This record gives sequence, structure tokens and C-alpha cells, in this order.
Amino acid sequence: MGGAILVLSGPSGAGKSTIIENASSKIGDYYFSISTTTRKPREGEIDGVNYHFVSREEFEEDIKAGVFLEYATVHGNYYGTSLKPVKEALKRGKLVIFDIDIQGHRLVRAKVGDLVTSVFITPPSLSELERRLYSRSTDKKSIIEKRIENAKEEIKAICEFDFVIINDNIERASNEFATISNASRLKLSKRELEKLVANWENS
Amino acid sequence: MGGAILVLSGPSGAGKSTIIENASSKIGDYYFSISTTTRKPREGEIDGVNYHFVSREEFEEDIKAGVFLEYATVHGNYYGTSLKPVKEALKRGKLVIFDIDIQGHRLVRAKVGDLVTSVFITPPSLSELERRLYSRSTDKKSIIEKRIENAKEEIKAICEFDFVIINDNIERASNEFATISNASRLKLSKRELEKLVANWENS
Repeated sequence: MGGAILVLSGPSGAGKSTIIENASSKIGDYYFSISTTTRKPREGEIDGVNYHFVSREEFEEDIKAGVFLEYATVHGNYYGTSLKPVKEALKRGKLVIFDIDIQGHRLVRAKVGDLVTSVFITPPSLSELERRLYSRSTDKKSIIEKRIENAKEEIKAICEFDFVIINDNIERASNEFATISNASRLKLSKRELEKLVANWENS
Repeated sequence: MGGAILVLSGPSGAGKSTIIENASSKIGDYYFSISTTTRKPREGEIDGVNYHFVSREEFEEDIKAGVFLEYATVHGNYYGTSLKPVKEALKRGKLVIFDIDIQGHRLVRAKVGDLVTSVFITPPSLSELERRLYSRSTDKKSIIEKRIENAKEEIKAICEFDFVIINDNIERASNEFATISNASRLKLSKRELEKLVANWENS
């Protein structure tokens, strides 16, 4: 079986990283796609682990060179997904997990929709999101306010996703994510389906 | 969380019943929708367990009375799904499993698509299907030939399904079905999503 893509979106503060971490032992072999960004690293973030941190100039050169499967601007910074490592992981039959925003989801779905299952993770309420963002306090107030404004927009796009997980209980949310991941892996690509139909007729 | 619908289709002889039976202990609380049909019971089939067996006259009266969520004609016989028990099971938050054909899948998807996850189960090849149908030998040769002709048409519709399971190993196929069932249960309806967005804005 070929690979599959799982897109994970949701506001900063929704708990995406924790959910992936908790679920990782239950979802078999996967490749986590590391995005490239021009935003500055937060405290504790490591280049090549959390993101590939690059300059605006580098990013714009990569755009011209056709490096990205998708890219978008969020809060004035570029975020993008390099195509090459994704292709290689898919070739090896892996589940590729993307942590991208709603614009990225749209672009990936438009390009390789037959491979995609998507999940939106949301905190239970706006007030809970605010509480989490302020208590995490890795960002300045102005950035937090921007994130909250963004979350208000993002939540309106949830109907575009295959699944929505309400993260009011991290244990349950992580289990739900693992369940969805394991199912998403079973999705056959259009090419695989066409092959199946062709072989069937000759069998 | 509200209920969800899992549609299961595939040629007679694909192993659908065995797969549901094997997976049933792993998929939590579900309601298996019993179809109504005008075809004669096969040996061992029980009215109210495998199907509700009715006459053409009764079926046609039920059509007029608006009893069915979907109905279709297959091999010259009527098959249909009564709406009422499905609605009740969904209300109780259950996963409702339908074993219906590709026409039924289309109708259910058109009516309540936001609740539906669908799985097509296929034997690995046409020759294997023939082998299974003849070794099962519950049907006359003419009926088996009809089933095989039908399978050739059905396989062309697999792209319409969310998932395809190739049943070349009953153990693996049953596990895949359980995984998909558990994920399908997590699907939120359009109404639930709209409620979530509305609540979010006021929270």
C-alpha cells in the first residue's frame, strides 16, 4: 500500500503538539513533515526539529524554485511545506503528518486530495484558548491577540475538515487522533484504486 | 456526540458479514441496520435478523408511505432501508452500520452525506470471487452468474467510497474495518459543527 497524508490544523494553543506526542506510540510508522518558516524561533524551539527556520530571502528563492507543496502567509510570516521529503516518505508507504494552517490544508487538498484525511483540533472555547495562550506565555501580548483573532477566523473553516476534535480532555483527544490516524493510513490513492479496477477486470 | 453512519458495500462473496462479525467486539456500541427485501430468504437466513423479508406489494406500499431512507432494485428484487429505526439509533448517539449496494450508498450520501463514512469491501480478484460464490453454493448457477456480472459493475464505483478494503486476509480485513468504524464514529454532523462555531463565538 502507498502512503497517505494526514493534515492537522487548529489554532495555536489547541494542543496539537501534545496530541501528536501522546498519540505517536499508537499510530505506527509515520513521517512528521517539518514546515519551513520565516518566523523567529520561540524559546525552546530547535531548527530542523520544530521548523526549518529561514530568512525571507531564502524562502522567496525556494518559492521561485518550486520547492513547496504549499505555502502561505500567517501573521505576516511565511510557512511552507517542502515537496521532496514528503514524496520520499509517501514512496516508502508512510503516513505523512502535516501540521499546517487552514490555507495550507486547502492547497494540499487541491493538489493531492485523494491522499488526504484532515483533522481540525480546537480548544473547547475561546475563553479557554485565551487562558492557554496567556498561561503558556511564550509570546508577547500583541502576538497572542493576533493568534486569538486568527482563531476566530479559523474556526469558521471547520466544515472543510474530515474530522474535528474538541480538545477538552487531552487523553481523549489524543486517543481520537490516534484512531483517525490509523484509519487515514488505510486510504487508497486514486492511482491505487484505478490499478485495482484494471487488475480486477483481468483477473 | 451525535450518531454517525457507516456504509458498507461490496459484491456478494466479498466477506462483509464475516468482517462485521469479527470486528463487532472492537467497534463499541453500534446498530446494524436490517434491510427490507423482496428477495426470497437463502437457506439459514432468518426474517428480522438477516433481512425483513416482505412481498412486492408490501414493499411498494412502504415506498408510497415514505418509509425508506433509500431503496433500490438489485437482480430484480427490491432492497430498502427503513428510516425510523435509523433515526432512533442516531439520536441515541450510535454508529449505524448499513450493508447496502452502490446505489444505496449514493442515495444515503445524497441525503445525509455529512454523517456518512463509506467502505467498499472487495475480494482480491474476480476469479477468487467466483471461487467463493461457487464454494458457498447457496445460490443457483444463474444467480451466481448474475452476482458476478454485478460485481464487475460495482467495482467501477469504488472511487466513490471513502475507504476500500481488499479482503485477501480475513483477519487483516476485519481489523481494518474495525479501525475505520472507530474513526467514522468521530465524525461530527454539519449541525454539530455549526453549533460548535456558534458557541465558540459566544464563549
